[in-house]
Amino acid sequence: MKTLIVHAHPEPLSLNGTLKDLAVSTLEGAGHEVRVSDLYAMNWKAAVDAADYGPAASPRLNVALDSGRAFDTGTLTADVRAEQEKLLWADTVILQFPLWWFTMPAILKGWVERVFTYHFGYGVGEHSDTHYGDRFGEGTLAGRRAMVSVTTGGGESHFSARGINGPIDDLLFPIQHGILYYPGMEVLPPFVVHRADRLTEEDFPDVAKAWQERLLTLESTEPIPFRRQNFGDYEIPSMRLKEGLGAPGRSGFGLHVRG
Amino acid sequence: MKTLIVHAHPEPLSLNGTLKDLAVSTLEGAGHEVRVSDLYAMNWKAAVDAADYGPAASPRLNVALDSGRAFDTGTLTADVRAEQEKLLWADTVILQFPLWWFTMPAILKGWVERVFTYHFGYGVGEHSDTHYGDRFGEGTLAGRRAMVSVTTGGGESHFSARGINGPIDDLLFPIQHGILYYPGMEVLPPFVVHRADRLTEEDFPDVAKAWQERLLTLESTEPIPFRRQNFGDYEIPSMRLKEGLGAPGRSGFGLHVRG
Repeated sequence: MKTLIVHAHPEPLSLNGTLKDLAVSTLEGAGHEVRVSDLYAMNWKAAVDAADYGPAASPRLNVALDSGRAFDTGTLTADVRAEQEKLLWADTVILQFPLWWFTMPAILKGWVERVFTYHFGYGVGEHSDTHYGDRFGEGTLAGRRAMVSVTTGGGESHFSARGINGPIDDLLFPIQHGILYYPGMEVLPPFVVHRADRLTEEDFPDVAKAWQERLLTLESTEPIPFRRQNFGDYEIPSMRLKEGLGAPGRSGFGLHVRG
Repeated sequence: MKTLIVHAHPEPLSLNGTLKDLAVSTLEGAGHEVRVSDLYAMNWKAAVDAADYGPAASPRLNVALDSGRAFDTGTLTADVRAEQEKLLWADTVILQFPLWWFTMPAILKGWVERVFTYHFGYGVGEHSDTHYGDRFGEGTLAGRRAMVSVTTGGGESHFSARGINGPIDDLLFPIQHGILYYPGMEVLPPFVVHRADRLTEEDFPDVAKAWQERLLTLESTEPIPFRRQNFGDYEIPSMRLKEGLGAPGRSGFGLHVRG
């Protein structure tokens, strides 16, 4: 395996930093290649703007079209090109982050916005009566697997089906389906550590063991069965799930998972 | 009204920039006071880190506790203090942004992470058998109203109940419930413009008219009836919605809206 870990925590000694380090040592110890994008250590520029696109930036900036032109003409900044190259090198991508305000940290969101340019992360493939671009199961990153490894401050019950924060699977859906599956990656079930702030040294060995088990079974873990866009489940171009699919009366994110 | 508009788009001439300008002129024209935090124009620092907390930053950074100590001791950076003051000044807060990768832009997420410190945005109030902190309907920003004004690239059907992107209300839930309602603000229904990239000059007057109507009725618009945390609907400390509340068999974000 060739694994890219994209890590987003400002404190190296945090639980997130420790889980990242454990992932590196565990995967390398099993003979795999690992590369790490430690966004805080890299002083990653979080906000996408015209400076990202060099001469491809229009006087009136258009983030989508200008990013696509910069990608096509090789004028993206070196930091963004390096991340795109890492993604193309990898067969497995792990996002390691704390859940802050119910989603990923800004620095990681900015990595997505700057690296997943038009013609790379989106705006790929043809549009026709039966095909609405290469996305949601197809795209530049098809053939790769991705996984979210996330820590939360709240208890597991707070993120349960009836928990006040909303179910963790729904909170992660825009990331897992909208960011990782969108450009073609298969997405493995997330690794979640709740109540990270309360974790004691006595608790850590169990967390570490569970994390290592996930890491060492990445190749055999079944991905979340998201529905592929262009294979008959959706009306095109309305992109509605066809009637009769999904549990009757059901709505929401869960509809887009088969079975 | 005293309205704070937090604006997150790098191009002043974008639809988002135009909607922000229209909000300013419309509200001021009606005699209201308006302040704008134009995050790109301010070159807002998006990534939270130890530099935000000055001498309150621990050698081993703890974002929650250190931000709370910096808040308590007045050592937050001037840019963050200014935003907290604007929030306390305002009775109405509008977030204006494009939906990028199914949520807010990184620069706006970084505004939340840096400004909503512990003891200001969270970590407020007592914990007891009947009260789990001042949050979800109570908190520092109680008594204020907030609204999301968002543009999307996809069509309305893509964000409908069965649309492949997921329902727009569910995509906005972590923002509306998890960021705005959490510190106590009432949240008005969002103003959403779909297919922003395809909007023509001929389409714009209808959008402008709809936006102005929303702006001029902010004070009389009913907020989304999110369930308040500490008033009997939730088990404490599991924070699960009590049995019998919400439609039978229902799960997910919608449970946390009454009726």
